[in-house]
Amino acid sequence: MSFGFETLARTPGGARAGRLRTPHGDVPTPIFMPVGTRATVKALSVSDLRRAGAGIVLANTYHLYLRPGVDVVREAGGLAAFSGWGGPTLTDSGGFQIVSLARLCELDETGVTFRSHLDGSRHRFTPESVVRFQRELGADVMMPLDVPPVPGAPADETARANRLTLAWLRRSIEERDRTEGTSSTGRRQALFGIAQGGFDPAARREAATALVELDLDGYAAGGLSLGEDKGKTREALQVTLDHLPADRPRYLMGMGTPEDLVDGIARGVDLFDCVLPTRNARNAQAFTSGGPVNLRLERHARDFGPLDSECRCETCTEYTRSYLRHLVKTGEMLGGRLLSLHNVHYYLNLVRTVREAILEGEFESARARILGRYGEEND
Amino acid sequence: MSFGFETLARTPGGARAGRLRTPHGDVPTPIFMPVGTRATVKALSVSDLRRAGAGIVLANTYHLYLRPGVDVVREAGGLAAFSGWGGPTLTDSGGFQIVSLARLCELDETGVTFRSHLDGSRHRFTPESVVRFQRELGADVMMPLDVPPVPGAPADETARANRLTLAWLRRSIEERDRTEGTSSTGRRQALFGIAQGGFDPAARREAATALVELDLDGYAAGGLSLGEDKGKTREALQVTLDHLPADRPRYLMGMGTPEDLVDGIARGVDLFDCVLPTRNARNAQAFTSGGPVNLRLERHARDFGPLDSECRCETCTEYTRSYLRHLVKTGEMLGGRLLSLHNVHYYLNLVRTVREAILEGEFESARARILGRYGEEND
Repeated sequence: MSFGFETLARTPGGARAGRLRTPHGDVPTPIFMPVGTRATVKALSVSDLRRAGAGIVLANTYHLYLRPGVDVVREAGGLAAFSGWGGPTLTDSGGFQIVSLARLCELDETGVTFRSHLDGSRHRFTPESVVRFQRELGADVMMPLDVPPVPGAPADETARANRLTLAWLRRSIEERDRTEGTSSTGRRQALFGIAQGGFDPAARREAATALVELDLDGYAAGGLSLGEDKGKTREALQVTLDHLPADRPRYLMGMGTPEDLVDGIARGVDLFDCVLPTRNARNAQAFTSGGPVNLRLERHARDFGPLDSECRCETCTEYTRSYLRHLVKTGEMLGGRLLSLHNVHYYLNLVRTVREAILEGEFESARARILGRYGEEND
Repeated sequence: MSFGFETLARTPGGARAGRLRTPHGDVPTPIFMPVGTRATVKALSVSDLRRAGAGIVLANTYHLYLRPGVDVVREAGGLAAFSGWGGPTLTDSGGFQIVSLARLCELDETGVTFRSHLDGSRHRFTPESVVRFQRELGADVMMPLDVPPVPGAPADETARANRLTLAWLRRSIEERDRTEGTSSTGRRQALFGIAQGGFDPAARREAATALVELDLDGYAAGGLSLGEDKGKTREALQVTLDHLPADRPRYLMGMGTPEDLVDGIARGVDLFDCVLPTRNARNAQAFTSGGPVNLRLERHARDFGPLDSECRCETCTEYTRSYLRHLVKTGEMLGGRLLSLHNVHYYLNLVRTVREAILEGEFESARARILGRYGEEND
């Protein structure tokens, strides 16, 4: 089997430990996917990712379509070969850019026309072309072009976004079926569905229910990283999860503080991605067992201890907080690099620890231990 | 012996292979010293440097004095400990900044007063204080505060620069002797002399001759990276080298294309430093066995071969030119990092290859082979 998902253990509350099979290798779940938008996880090499224990890396169709172009990636042998990573990958569709680059987009019933954020040139994305682009990119998991409702939009707009998302997904499936889900390098590609619905429980329920009828390889909860408060976000996530089948992988798109990961895993999420560990690293924030640390602060200037004494990454074993602060304060590239390395290591170690706890039937105590310590430091 | 130098082999023309002993370890010579101005070789980790075979790393007193402050470095246990590098280090004095930051400096007979390039605050550097700062930094080799003549300056200015450089060196030696050349961490530190003299052969001869009488641990040829043409520069270098004793290490400050390194080694230089491999890497230029390569060029867009097929560094074994070009064109941090890694690896491999050739009595054929290939590619 070239693509599949199995659950190995499950807690009474619904957290699960499993395994995702892909043509580029198996991925233990729950897992955090480092974000490599332009086929590079910012500042990190592929050997950094391997050493950190990354299992699957995300990239973005919209950005790779613009540069270097999907044809270059295809000629390289697909995203895994092009980037040197070699392992499992997932490509986001560009749907998120409909929101994040909204002023450059015109949405209509059949697709989206946008001007490039680089040179203003006009491009057309349809559900079909986005599947074709991802066929060229050759990621193991494709995401369909969707329409995330703008947060706070009136109910009729949310309903239209839901309707378009579902209609476009049907078209994406048809396009996928044209090559029987096979990439340009001849490998099987999974297609996930994205359940939107904004922050309205009824709309989310409707979206998830309709989606499941289409029998996809996996299901994602989308639109939840758009800045609503934690309570509303988690409620919306739970409604979606309640309507997804247990035998398919579940992916929470784009959100994750360390607390979000633990909470999401408790609710039965298998896959996460988020720019926080790398983006915040470039802004001097480290995630540690004791909580978030701001390396700009004077209190670290003469701290010759490690960033996180429980961490075994290169940053924590080779360097001190004092030195990391010096790098950050002087704007040296190595600062962003070493903090990115640590943060990704921290995130992957977190999901690995929780996974082992689930397998050993110790999830609740692991969760209490992790969250109990997190917040001891809070810069 | 905590500091020393021995020559292991010598060619008829004067190239030599040797060994520099320091309290932080032995350094094979000839060697290239990667430049870590602010206690970091830009974009590279200490494990990168170790894997590239770095033997000794350079840092800058002026920059470290400003940030993080010499006291922080001392409390960390000195530069080698602070930076995580652990191995031999050399600190430049800040003399070069008298030229490069001239508009912020006022030079007088006893020292230099400058305004910080960061916040405009006023600071005073004297030959004595600069030795004291370097004692706190604890590098294995200290460089004295000198006065490089401004290129193209009239003869009387060059003469004054020579006179001050020599007078300040005497004061540096006195300050060194106050602690018998011992750093704040209790290790012996070498002090080199710097032979200036601009591009006037007579002035360079005078500077070198006077310097040698002071019996220093090593001698540097300074002021030669300031942009004169190759012919004049090499002539000025040769005059200096002609007057330096054979039993001490010789350091050519701040210049080095790959051709400069091979030429300098042929003339008997033991130590080099230069920002080219790291600075140019951040500007998309790679140094390869075939010559300089500009990764911005379209011709690399679909080149799925390695950057340098003769190189065994991580960049050349894990990534393609196509991917490196993509990183460079999209401004991704990983691009500057991977090119810096390769360039430093290339430089260190170059001096290592030449050293082995000297030891095996094959220097001339190695030189011809290296220079013969270099230039096959020339972006």
